[in-house]
Amino acid sequence: MEFTVGQIAALLDGQVEGNATAKIRELAKIEDAGTGSLAFLSNLKYEHFLYATGATAVIVANSFTPKQPVSAALIRVEDPYSSFSRLLEEYQKALAALKTGVEQPSFVGESSHLGENHYRGAFSYIGENCQLGFNVKIYPQAYLGDNVKIGNNTTIFAGAKIYSNTVIGNNCTIHAGAVLGSAGFGFAPQKDGSYRDIPQTGNVVLEDNVNIGANTTIDCATLGSTIIHEGTKIDNLVQIAHNVEIGRHTVIASQSGISGSAKLGNNCTIAGQVGIVGHISLADKTIVGAQSGVSKTITQTGTIIQGSPAFDYKQNLRSLAVFRRLPELEKQLNQLKEKI
Amino acid sequence: MEFTVGQIAALLDGQVEGNATAKIRELAKIEDAGTGSLAFLSNLKYEHFLYATGATAVIVANSFTPKQPVSAALIRVEDPYSSFSRLLEEYQKALAALKTGVEQPSFVGESSHLGENHYRGAFSYIGENCQLGFNVKIYPQAYLGDNVKIGNNTTIFAGAKIYSNTVIGNNCTIHAGAVLGSAGFGFAPQKDGSYRDIPQTGNVVLEDNVNIGANTTIDCATLGSTIIHEGTKIDNLVQIAHNVEIGRHTVIASQSGISGSAKLGNNCTIAGQVGIVGHISLADKTIVGAQSGVSKTITQTGTIIQGSPAFDYKQNLRSLAVFRRLPELEKQLNQLKEKI
Amino acid sequence: MEFTVGQIAALLDGQVEGNATAKIRELAKIEDAGTGSLAFLSNLKYEHFLYATGATAVIVANSFTPKQPVSAALIRVEDPYSSFSRLLEEYQKALAALKTGVEQPSFVGESSHLGENHYRGAFSYIGENCQLGFNVKIYPQAYLGDNVKIGNNTTIFAGAKIYSNTVIGNNCTIHAGAVLGSAGFGFAPQKDGSYRDIPQTGNVVLEDNVNIGANTTIDCATLGSTIIHEGTKIDNLVQIAHNVEIGRHTVIASQSGISGSAKLGNNCTIAGQVGIVGHISLADKTIVGAQSGVSKTITQTGTIIQGSPAFDYKQNLRSLAVFRRLPELEKQLNQLKEKI
Repeated sequence: MEFTVGQIAALLDGQVEGNATAKIRELAKIEDAGTGSLAFLSNLKYEHFLYATGATAVIVANSFTPKQPVSAALIRVEDPYSSFSRLLEEYQKALAALKTGVEQPSFVGESSHLGENHYRGAFSYIGENCQLGFNVKIYPQAYLGDNVKIGNNTTIFAGAKIYSNTVIGNNCTIHAGAVLGSAGFGFAPQKDGSYRDIPQTGNVVLEDNVNIGANTTIDCATLGSTIIHEGTKIDNLVQIAHNVEIGRHTVIASQSGISGSAKLGNNCTIAGQVGIVGHISLADKTIVGAQSGVSKTITQTGTIIQGSPAFDYKQNLRSLAVFRRLPELEKQLNQLKEKI
Repeated sequence: MEFTVGQIAALLDGQVEGNATAKIRELAKIEDAGTGSLAFLSNLKYEHFLYATGATAVIVANSFTPKQPVSAALIRVEDPYSSFSRLLEEYQKALAALKTGVEQPSFVGESSHLGENHYRGAFSYIGENCQLGFNVKIYPQAYLGDNVKIGNNTTIFAGAKIYSNTVIGNNCTIHAGAVLGSAGFGFAPQKDGSYRDIPQTGNVVLEDNVNIGANTTIDCATLGSTIIHEGTKIDNLVQIAHNVEIGRHTVIASQSGISGSAKLGNNCTIAGQVGIVGHISLADKTIVGAQSGVSKTITQTGTIIQGSPAFDYKQNLRSLAVFRRLPELEKQLNQLKEKI
Repeated sequence: MEFTVGQIAALLDGQVEGNATAKIRELAKIEDAGTGSLAFLSNLKYEHFLYATGATAVIVANSFTPKQPVSAALIRVEDPYSSFSRLLEEYQKALAALKTGVEQPSFVGESSHLGENHYRGAFSYIGENCQLGFNVKIYPQAYLGDNVKIGNNTTIFAGAKIYSNTVIGNNCTIHAGAVLGSAGFGFAPQKDGSYRDIPQTGNVVLEDNVNIGANTTIDCATLGSTIIHEGTKIDNLVQIAHNVEIGRHTVIASQSGISGSAKLGNNCTIAGQVGIVGHISLADKTIVGAQSGVSKTITQTGTIIQGSPAFDYKQNLRSLAVFRRLPELEKQLNQLKEKI
């Protein structure tokens, strides 16, 4: 995609100073930008980059006065940061709109129904009795088992695997390699020391506006549903076990793991590499620090915890500070013992 | 699949009270069940759900007497829990039996041989010189390299990747996105600070009744085999490095990592997010608590360890209890020092 | 592939003692080797295996004199270890050379260009406007979006997913299930508690000689590039977030996670299950111990750290030693308090 500086200025209700016919091919940071790039200057801490930039054009504030000559064209707007953000979103939308139609070979069960304006990439697989809304994008090599339901405007990226009976809402994004609906990890120990599989016949339900990161795994429930409520965002390589329920607008960072039947509230923040044991619940707005291990139910809204096992994060910080001085403490204790 | 209440009662040698011709389409928990669902009541703690349930039928004990009117049909059996478990297993089997035949396009090397009654999904790939037993299911987009051997009744779910020379036993389940046989992480440091790949020419061997979770990775051996012995169950997102050997009936929970050449015994239990360093061994029935880091060989059968680094779990719990009081301890020590 | 003992000896400039016409089909460890296997004996600690081995041939040093009869043929060379390593490399090269040509069906966008002597497996997908060098191998079910650039001699294993605009250098290896270029995990909190996606329009750049492990995920930059510099080796299930930059010849072990905008220097060693927070940097040759959490910038070349949070590894070891004695310390402190 290629636009002129003038076209972009018109889109942003901005004014051009410089060459309005120059061509823009990409968006870039002002310090990295080269020919064909559009950058922005909002925080004046970065003003010196403006005088050295190779960008073809830079978005600046109406109120900004350069102190040196600038080779780039300027696009003057009220708020450069939000104008640039708007361009990023338009760019994303334009990119998404590019993918439409059906590439062959792809596989669709005869009893499945796909809504209007969908994209199906080559080697994508859709089983029997699936119901997909409009504007759904199924990228190459993605897999949908049987009886999968997907709302409108949802994107399933390349090679994501959606087991049978999964339900996905509107405006969801499932990244490459994510697996939804694999069997929960449940085994009944036998007298001879072996294990027998406990059948896992439930499913996974994602409500609207949920994002699932690359190679993240979400197991189906033993019975009933593993549920991710509206607006929750899950990063890459996260594990969500069977029968977990995660509230609305909760954020879970990479490589965290939520064990079976745990319940997370709304608006929680789970940092990276956290583990949460099974069958406990976290109150709304719980914040869990990175690499923590949460072993107990949290009932107080807005609790902040850290550590493995996790407890109040301020207390944990204080204990960690003493931990570093432990050899010195032991020495002092030994000296006291000798004195007495 | 749809059955009548009467058909299910007959399967379970049970007696129907109520509408034996009502239709059952799914199994559910008594508190979640709606029309078309079959639930069970075993623990009388949950008896109140029976009077409110929307289930079409509920399995109850022969000895059970309702205290209030029940709208659901009742199926009376000796042991409701085991009857329900049996239904779950039958359901699972029936589902599995549905997949058979060959979907096109799929790819099979000319020199490969597949046993009777197999399923091959569309876009599945089987290389040259593979030998597959009977009742094997290869789901869509699964990959088998060359010289792969698979026993009977084994299922490879969608998009699992089995590198060349892997050997898989009978009754194994490999979940979506799992990778078996990728190159071990071995590099020889060179004088200039760079690394040279150490060729990894071994393979991965899974014995019978092994389960591998979604997106788990098992590297091939440098020479010889990375081996998972009979009946071992491995959860999602687990890393098994090159030349590891894992005993029989061992359970490894999600996101744990076993480093190169480590040996785990039989009937071990490894909780989630555990790390085990290379070249050590764990005795039979070793139990490792969640988020532990195991850095030393364990020789005593049945040892329970926790912590990073891991040691006796009771001692670790005691040390953790004092850890929380460390700021108070330091204060007391300082007060003593002043007194003396 | 099958060779005679004599052919292998000729390749290694070695001398045969025993049956030069016996057939070799695989390389093995001397303790595991059976008929058709070639092993080596370098460290005389393992000499006793030589007298019991089932190997068809064993590589030994010119200077070696057996103390007992040996049933295997001997191939005498100057340095058995390096001769064996050379065979491993030749074997690897021979294997790699086997894959060439195009399997059908596979998908290539009309505007894409592939260099000479490439391999494309069945169900592989290459989007529009991709540029691939010579000797590139794209295994079955691998995915390349649009505008992907790949250098010479690079291998993309089965089912790896390379999003649009990714740039990959020469001699790289991307293992099965790895995902490059998924959207960075960036969301702007809204006043109502929900999150809005921050568009991620950058890409991923891998320089030459980079290895990426199975099911590892590398997110694209928000703007600009997430960069992995030359010769860096990344293990399985590693997470590299948006805008991360990793120096040359750095090694990152399995299940580690590098948060957004962190910068790692050259020749660093990151052990397994490490977490590194965002926006910090690590000096060249930094070594981070397993399961550590790095929360601060490291400026000193060659620093070795450990712990969560990580600090000097020797100090950490000393603190950990006292940690185990904490219950005893507390007891002694309480006794002192009573005395005074």
